[in-house]
Amino acid sequence: MTSRSESNPVSFDRLQAFLSRGLEHAGLPAEDAGRVATLMATADLQGSDGHGAIRLPQYVKRIRAGGINTRPDIHVVTERAAMAVIDGDNGMGHLVMSQAVDLAMEKARNAGIGWVGARNSNHAGPASLYVRKPVEHDMIALYFAVGNANHLPPWGGAEMLLSTNPIAVGVPAGDEPPVVLDMATTVAAYGKVKAKAKRGEQMPEGWMIDRQGQPLLDPKRADEGFLLPIGNHKGYGLALIVGLLAGTLNGAAMGRDVVDFNHDHTTPTNTGQSVLVLDLAAFAEPSVFKAALDHLIRDLRNSERLPGVERIWLPGEQSFGKRREYAERGIPLAAGLVKDLAALAEELGIEPL
Amino acid sequence: MTSRSESNPVSFDRLQAFLSRGLEHAGLPAEDAGRVATLMATADLQGSDGHGAIRLPQYVKRIRAGGINTRPDIHVVTERAAMAVIDGDNGMGHLVMSQAVDLAMEKARNAGIGWVGARNSNHAGPASLYVRKPVEHDMIALYFAVGNANHLPPWGGAEMLLSTNPIAVGVPAGDEPPVVLDMATTVAAYGKVKAKAKRGEQMPEGWMIDRQGQPLLDPKRADEGFLLPIGNHKGYGLALIVGLLAGTLNGAAMGRDVVDFNHDHTTPTNTGQSVLVLDLAAFAEPSVFKAALDHLIRDLRNSERLPGVERIWLPGEQSFGKRREYAERGIPLAAGLVKDLAALAEELGIEPL
Repeated sequence: MTSRSESNPVSFDRLQAFLSRGLEHAGLPAEDAGRVATLMATADLQGSDGHGAIRLPQYVKRIRAGGINTRPDIHVVTERAAMAVIDGDNGMGHLVMSQAVDLAMEKARNAGIGWVGARNSNHAGPASLYVRKPVEHDMIALYFAVGNANHLPPWGGAEMLLSTNPIAVGVPAGDEPPVVLDMATTVAAYGKVKAKAKRGEQMPEGWMIDRQGQPLLDPKRADEGFLLPIGNHKGYGLALIVGLLAGTLNGAAMGRDVVDFNHDHTTPTNTGQSVLVLDLAAFAEPSVFKAALDHLIRDLRNSERLPGVERIWLPGEQSFGKRREYAERGIPLAAGLVKDLAALAEELGIEPL
Repeated sequence: MTSRSESNPVSFDRLQAFLSRGLEHAGLPAEDAGRVATLMATADLQGSDGHGAIRLPQYVKRIRAGGINTRPDIHVVTERAAMAVIDGDNGMGHLVMSQAVDLAMEKARNAGIGWVGARNSNHAGPASLYVRKPVEHDMIALYFAVGNANHLPPWGGAEMLLSTNPIAVGVPAGDEPPVVLDMATTVAAYGKVKAKAKRGEQMPEGWMIDRQGQPLLDPKRADEGFLLPIGNHKGYGLALIVGLLAGTLNGAAMGRDVVDFNHDHTTPTNTGQSVLVLDLAAFAEPSVFKAALDHLIRDLRNSERLPGVERIWLPGEQSFGKRREYAERGIPLAAGLVKDLAALAEELGIEPL
């Protein structure tokens, strides 16, 4: 283990190169490893630290266990002018969804909007990764995914048949940062529960309940309970709908068929994701839309605040700020993560971070 | 006032005919009055009683005040293979959105999916009204609308710049009722606050806060506070995104431009709504999808329940049950509403309910 692995923060390029080494060593072709590493490092760059470099050990384990197809034939199963379903052939989710987004953008350019769904995909990182490219091309994008472990029962239930199925939406602005919403349909994502446990803190009421329906506050007892959906039955409905649009509609796993990828490293997950892209130019002059959004953003940001509130944020604004800051000063990685990545580097016999 | 107006429940046909008389008397052409009345009565039939017959006095007032164009030229402003924007020319929202849904379905049949947005529309009743027709034709539909009064500040804010912007999604099943989600992005819709006030009840914590950010429990003080979004900042994000997709993208009102149609009966509202339709047949054999959804629905419904929970419901299942029951036995109208409609009938000089 070298001293470099403990240096902190790390540049985007150095992190990307390390992730790429790890993935290539595990078995991905060099080009694919580089592409996945770029998306993983981008996750850390925008502050989505639960879905970036932290996932490398798990991905490597899965690839080496044969749970990922390292030479996938990602192909279109069916398509029309404005939609397609692609089969990811159990490849890395990042590769599958990158292809899906490119195809959806191409269709949107012609038909005004484009929808591409994927089956036989895998975990692809934070939802918002896949709305950023359309946004850079004056397109609105919506992304729906089936999560890779069920932590949520139907409302009133005690059996975890649903995941935290996330939604991301990106909307291009003019001078202002784009509006980017990236949210699980549960009050807290499961990673936040794990983080509370690590820090020895209690959870606030409303995150989880136990099997008696009582508030569960000790994150170390998380296995004895369930996450709560946002807005009670409403979040349950949203999680279900996202699962239908991203899973069932694509012939991907949903409900009982979802494979818990934290505990099972070999069964193909048949992960489903869908992306919808709307080309601003088909609706009106993009500059007119973007100016209207800038105006709205400023109205919201500068509006009257509740006592004690320092600032009103737009969705994605804090992440946008981090991206700028980290690109300049480097990405701060948690000490525990740096240690884990160093251990992995040693295990794989690759140059450390 | 005749005794008939107090009879209760009322058949769908009788309610529809009464609503049609009222709208025609107020100034809508007979055919349009009939179409709007059918959608309004359908709202009551499915239990959406905050958006059906109860709205007649307000609609009549608005039409008579000149706030609605009774002879609108509802037309396509721009279109591509899979999308269109229509201008409702300030006609009744029900007419505008019916046309939007038909066009979206036609586009979905050809391109696989279809998106139609509307500007210069008006309040169109419950969101779920507009996903039912696609569902009956083996299509999934998503509906987004900008609400007609701002009751929600941005998260941390004290100025109501957003509405309860609702989402509806309809998904066709096989032998099971369709999954139909219809939800405001706030914990409680404003109508529920008014209902609590009428019954002299307190609101539960979590519905509203006052201008100090403290829980507001007395619904009679509703004017002193704001609705809370589901999942705190997440619901704020959702309300904003729905507003962008249904309002800003269509060149319709959003933020400060939203006209409060409860207090202003003449200014055109420039209401925006959008509908997205996905044709199941473009994705796979519809019967395969519907069988998979039936299977999932039964897994959810029959899964283990929390103590004290009698039944797990699917989104839209209770509304589906009401629709069946009310079609057979008649629609129960609240005594207060029957009285209001009788008074309106007398005022207009039309045959009462």
